[in-house]
Amino acid sequence: MISKKNLKTPYYAVIFSSIKAELNNENYSIMSDKMVELAETQKGFLDIENVKENEIGITISYWTDLNAIKNWKENSEHLIAQKYGKSDWYKFYKIRIAKVERDYEFENKL
Amino acid sequence: MISKKNLKTPYYAVIFSSIKAELNNENYSIMSDKMVELAETQKGFLDIENVKENEIGITISYWTDLNAIKNWKENSEHLIAQKYGKSDWYKFYKIRIAKVERDYEFENKL
Repeated sequence: MISKKNLKTPYYAVIFSSIKAELNNENYSIMSDKMVELAETQKGFLDIENVKENEIGITISYWTDLNAIKNWKENSEHLIAQKYGKSDWYKFYKIRIAKVERDYEFENKL
Repeated sequence: MISKKNLKTPYYAVIFSSIKAELNNENYSIMSDKMVELAETQKGFLDIENVKENEIGITISYWTDLNAIKNWKENSEHLIAQKYGKSDWYKFYKIRIAKVERDYEFENKL
């Protein structure tokens, strides 16, 4: 899914680029959905985008500030998911913390 | 594709989140591949990541600085692609310019 929300700059993005170790792991899917639901309840959460193509994926969550990102990283349920991510689910991932300085959009109204 | 390159922070990301108007447009595929090849030759280009899932896609290009991004946006061949993007290929897109302040990665060596 893609975010169409209008967010007030500046805000922060956590870019999570990943390669999964195995496809179609049921526990992964359950935990992944749960983490999105949980993230959405966190203070400072703005929105999330997620695209998957076979074993590769990009998930970008948007946040008001660095403190909100820090709190989310240290959330106890999220910490458990991070542990399984390393031991079982991911072959590789990279996380980038970025400050969104500017954004603009195009929509074809036809 | 996902980038595994180690980039020196800070650097810049252009996050391009899109919804295509129609799938499997041949001209789009040709132009899209050409734009990636052209971007790679630009001064200040660092790397590119791209994931597609049906009509939605996230492409993130990484650059050394804002000036490199500005030059790429104004590149004459790229301007033609942008024109077709609006008239033919995309139903919606959002572009975010973000400064990557920190990154870290995990790789399962097993």
